[in-house]
Amino acid sequence: MKMKSFLNIVLFVASFNLWAEYGHNLWLRARNQGRVHVVCAKSSTTISIAKMELEQGWQGKSGASVLLKLKSDKKIKGDGFVISSLEIQANTELGILYGAYEMLRREQTNNIVSTEIINPSYERRILNHWDNLDGSIERGYSGKSIFWKSGKDALVVTQKDIAIWKEYARANASIGINGAVLDNVNASPLILTSGYLKRVKAIADVLRPFGVRTYLSVKFSSPVLIGGIKTSDPLNLEVIQWWNKKVKEIYSLVPDFGGFLIKANSEGQPGPQDFGRTHADGANMLADALKPYDGIVMWRAFVYDSSDHDRAKQAYNEFMPLDGQFRDNVIIQVKNGPIDFQPREPFSPLFEAMKKNSVMPELQITQEYLGHSVHLVYLAPMWEEFLKSDTYQNGSGSTVASCTDGSIFPQKYTAIAGVANIGLDTNWCGHQFAQANWYAFGRLAWNNQLTSEQIANEWIKLTFSSESEQHLNTTDWTENFLIPVKQMMMESHEAAVNYMMPLGLHHIFAAEHHYGPGPWWAPKYMRKDWTPPYYHQADTIGVGFNRTTIGSDAVSEYHEPLKSQFNDVKSCPERYLLWFHHVPWDYKLKSGNSLWDEICLHYDKGLQQVRGFQKTWDKVQQYVDADRFVEVQVKLRNQSQNAQLWKDGCLLYFQQFSRKPIPYNLERPIHNLQDVMELDFSKTE
Amino acid sequence: MKMKSFLNIVLFVASFNLWAEYGHNLWLRARNQGRVHVVCAKSSTTISIAKMELEQGWQGKSGASVLLKLKSDKKIKGDGFVISSLEIQANTELGILYGAYEMLRREQTNNIVSTEIINPSYERRILNHWDNLDGSIERGYSGKSIFWKSGKDALVVTQKDIAIWKEYARANASIGINGAVLDNVNASPLILTSGYLKRVKAIADVLRPFGVRTYLSVKFSSPVLIGGIKTSDPLNLEVIQWWNKKVKEIYSLVPDFGGFLIKANSEGQPGPQDFGRTHADGANMLADALKPYDGIVMWRAFVYDSSDHDRAKQAYNEFMPLDGQFRDNVIIQVKNGPIDFQPREPFSPLFEAMKKNSVMPELQITQEYLGHSVHLVYLAPMWEEFLKSDTYQNGSGSTVASCTDGSIFPQKYTAIAGVANIGLDTNWCGHQFAQANWYAFGRLAWNNQLTSEQIANEWIKLTFSSESEQHLNTTDWTENFLIPVKQMMMESHEAAVNYMMPLGLHHIFAAEHHYGPGPWWAPKYMRKDWTPPYYHQADTIGVGFNRTTIGSDAVSEYHEPLKSQFNDVKSCPERYLLWFHHVPWDYKLKSGNSLWDEICLHYDKGLQQVRGFQKTWDKVQQYVDADRFVEVQVKLRNQSQNAQLWKDGCLLYFQQFSRKPIPYNLERPIHNLQDVMELDFSKTE
Repeated sequence: MKMKSFLNIVLFVASFNLWAEYGHNLWLRARNQGRVHVVCAKSSTTISIAKMELEQGWQGKSGASVLLKLKSDKKIKGDGFVISSLEIQANTELGILYGAYEMLRREQTNNIVSTEIINPSYERRILNHWDNLDGSIERGYSGKSIFWKSGKDALVVTQKDIAIWKEYARANASIGINGAVLDNVNASPLILTSGYLKRVKAIADVLRPFGVRTYLSVKFSSPVLIGGIKTSDPLNLEVIQWWNKKVKEIYSLVPDFGGFLIKANSEGQPGPQDFGRTHADGANMLADALKPYDGIVMWRAFVYDSSDHDRAKQAYNEFMPLDGQFRDNVIIQVKNGPIDFQPREPFSPLFEAMKKNSVMPELQITQEYLGHSVHLVYLAPMWEEFLKSDTYQNGSGSTVASCTDGSIFPQKYTAIAGVANIGLDTNWCGHQFAQANWYAFGRLAWNNQLTSEQIANEWIKLTFSSESEQHLNTTDWTENFLIPVKQMMMESHEAAVNYMMPLGLHHIFAAEHHYGPGPWWAPKYMRKDWTPPYYHQADTIGVGFNRTTIGSDAVSEYHEPLKSQFNDVKSCPERYLLWFHHVPWDYKLKSGNSLWDEICLHYDKGLQQVRGFQKTWDKVQQYVDADRFVEVQVKLRNQSQNAQLWKDGCLLYFQQFSRKPIPYNLERPIHNLQDVMELDFSKTE
Repeated sequence: MKMKSFLNIVLFVASFNLWAEYGHNLWLRARNQGRVHVVCAKSSTTISIAKMELEQGWQGKSGASVLLKLKSDKKIKGDGFVISSLEIQANTELGILYGAYEMLRREQTNNIVSTEIINPSYERRILNHWDNLDGSIERGYSGKSIFWKSGKDALVVTQKDIAIWKEYARANASIGINGAVLDNVNASPLILTSGYLKRVKAIADVLRPFGVRTYLSVKFSSPVLIGGIKTSDPLNLEVIQWWNKKVKEIYSLVPDFGGFLIKANSEGQPGPQDFGRTHADGANMLADALKPYDGIVMWRAFVYDSSDHDRAKQAYNEFMPLDGQFRDNVIIQVKNGPIDFQPREPFSPLFEAMKKNSVMPELQITQEYLGHSVHLVYLAPMWEEFLKSDTYQNGSGSTVASCTDGSIFPQKYTAIAGVANIGLDTNWCGHQFAQANWYAFGRLAWNNQLTSEQIANEWIKLTFSSESEQHLNTTDWTENFLIPVKQMMMESHEAAVNYMMPLGLHHIFAAEHHYGPGPWWAPKYMRKDWTPPYYHQADTIGVGFNRTTIGSDAVSEYHEPLKSQFNDVKSCPERYLLWFHHVPWDYKLKSGNSLWDEICLHYDKGLQQVRGFQKTWDKVQQYVDADRFVEVQVKLRNQSQNAQLWKDGCLLYFQQFSRKPIPYNLERPIHNLQDVMELDFSKTE
């Protein structure tokens, strides 16, 4: 088994060459530049991987000797390690593996290695795959699922499957990701049937040596749907027994199984409320089943219904009364913003408010609301903004990061989840630069104090320099490739906010594709809270959702001084202005411009920024292989067209209410509103 | 009859109000601002129109008295007149009518009236309608024909027909147009059948009081097709007799019939060469038939076939040997450029070369190659450039204008034709600003020394000021409307050249629609000389058609010093560079830029210019009625999109040959070449 693993690794490393030009190698492109001797007293599959990686990717002094030291040390937490230039010490084998990847990263990014203790911010760093069992991926823009497929051979495990799972596990391990939820939160009950569980075992076996634990999304009504029981009531003994038995079965196949992720009583999914029970009743029943095996329940707080007058308030309203009622192996999984992965949202107040139960952030790596895999949008600046947001939970400086990573109160489990952007596309993520978001999620999950710029720096060096080593660290490459490309990445999220929904606007997409502009989109059959006019509230007076104390009062869910700051239009940060306030078109902003003019300026700026990205990219052509260059160039052109559609569609739509001219120094719309309204955006990607 | 005419005029003037906001009024919008007493010793329908127009549109001193004096004066030529502030003297009734329109124009444009003799440059100022008998219009972009219709009532003359013909005649008279060829040069033989001739008579009766004479395009094979004769050989006696009889029939219906326009042995049309005869044989036969009635033949020189290696040379090659062999009532009608109404062409060398027979210019008012009725392109600057081109026929200063208007040699007939852009669209021309091209053609036909700027000045004042008289001549209106709108018009043709085919590029349209970019367009089934690669000749060395003495030698058709000037890449005007030369991509132009960079700069500049027009137009919103404002705004948006497609498509296509980057300071393409190539431009209008 060990030798076979070795061979497989050699095989898949060698096969990279076939894909080299299309980005299949991700940030793992370095080849050894010299020989290295790796010494470790212990031998195991994981240790072998660490050794092999160091030998394959060694960039340090040729002939050097590296010591891998498994030795317990209280300064080292969990999967952490102590690293110096030629030594890695850790409490666990995985710590050694993570240290090996860190050592290579430092060599490859020319980061001087001094002795340092490196501990992870979160114990569980998890990808959520919204992969359906038929192989499709909800909000996936990079091909079919790497885990599931349809057809008569749906459950057959092939060598190709194993190869891709291994590559996937290796990529995760290299950035510290240690968990994967294999199936969609809109779960199929079939995942818990024996055929699928066998496939889960096969996946888990491949992922295990790389430290990636397997989790499953489960459907709350599984006892009825596949168990033959008449109810799924969490307090029903038969139901409890069914789950206990099912959990036992899973652990017999996957001894290190991580636990369940559940979307319950949300967007039509079944849940404990169907039986008059609470979220706590439901979560605790599952938690009790998992407890003997050290498994956890990640229970999603993404709940809302159309009866409430402000969707932004509902997760808080439903979950706050339950704080303290969940078992200690339940973590409430909360999306970063109160609505739904919008281009920009304030943080969800639950991160501050829940103090007695663990809370974990859910980020979205796949760009559901950020241009799918067409737009170049580096998400780390948005996540950094979120993680560093001060909640005031425990006085000033209580960032979301410290509220969730155990710094403020000792959570039994700390965790962070990212909805994956991974599929069978050759380049994994649809867009070469979307790989940076997978990378950045892993790096931030490991260390939530990293800046998005540090991460961009690393990623660019790892992703674009190895094929042209002569460039790396030359002034030429740094000035003419690294710096401009990094600047483009760093600016890209704000650009998307500008051309999509600036100044606190949110959820103004046309239709369920969540891709193109649609502030007008409001089919009669549609729930009001699924249509943009619900969110932007434009009228002839102004635009924006009044969530102040005289509006929906969502501001009151925030800790002071945020509540007061958000509540007053003068002190509310302008990036959240229309999130919290219905503001008159004439209202003067800090720039001295009226709201209307400022909206126009933002949309136009977003478009100009994308055009700037096109220039940036075209200028670096000589530093990039032709295939990746053209792929990104083509996508940037589409993004530029899209940005124009966003600008034109939104400005012409809102102009019907503002009745003011677009400032005459700005480039005029080139589309007519009716034409944008009639576009089928699902075809413009 | 006279009273009925009066009533009709009153009726159609009154009915203008219904259309007012949509541009149906053209440049004829002024209402009388005071009473005027018009005196004329003679009375006739034409004189009555002159009186009525002065009374309806009087803007001078209220209560003034105007004298219309029919009195022969040798200083006055043809339809000319002497005008002073309150008197018009002319040799003919039409001279009085034209004087009346000039008097109103001067009042309405605030042009101080001093005594002046105003004679027309050309005796015959003719619109060519490419109207098919089924009501469609070849290269028409403004609705169906005003003359013809299909269906069972195709030949029924309705009151609505008469009303529109009258409005049409009045508009022509107001700018001096005195002839109309009613049917397409790709003629149907049916036009000469008795049913259609009756309709021609009905039209002529309406047009006559306004001085607009009727002409017809005829098919050379008519004797076979409708005459029942076995041949159409022009030297065949039966054929000659058939035409004589047909001409007699026409004059019995239309006593002032103007003559025939013929497209023969051109693009598949039949002609004398089918019988081994020359163009002269064919034209003279028809000229002889028309001679007794003072009718003329306009014989088109637009001939070429695919066997020759340079289409640009062929009209010259075929017609020069025949110079002097045509009857004196034949005029050779020559398109302004040697190819075909391209955005920019050098003048056709025939204007200089033919000295023994009359030559008349054919301009195209309808924008076949200039963005149809979507793009705002004011054509007068192009025509001015053409008319003022020095041919050196009779030494320096022998402009095309003076070669064709009788200034250099005494042609028996002088004439100029414009292919009309008129249809049943409410605004007549499809685009509000396309009306300016109809207007400008008439004004230049009357006075080929007018500048395009003078004409724009007049047209803007007449077209946009009458509904808001309070604006006219105020500094505000002049500075904020007249000047910027005029600047936009004056720049518009060069902008179109920039974004379509700068630096002498020509005929690089996709497909026969002649609308969108298609330098790549070359279907296998297509004649080579109908495909763009024939014209641009791009390869890895350079681009352009070598027409120098070592190329096709088309330069030798030009008089010295033009031949030498065009022949040398250093002295060839850059606007014709790629027309006459195949130029290396690296070749340094006068700007210091390489040819490739300069091509890029031109395409980009064209796009930026259109964006500038959008700004200009949006800024004048307050000075224009809402309907016309929005109509033009919408078209400018489309034009802006089109300009982008032209830029992107052409640059990405030619880049495949130049293999050089688009200068990095320029905005990047936002379309991919393949996408532009797959666009159906007939649907993007």
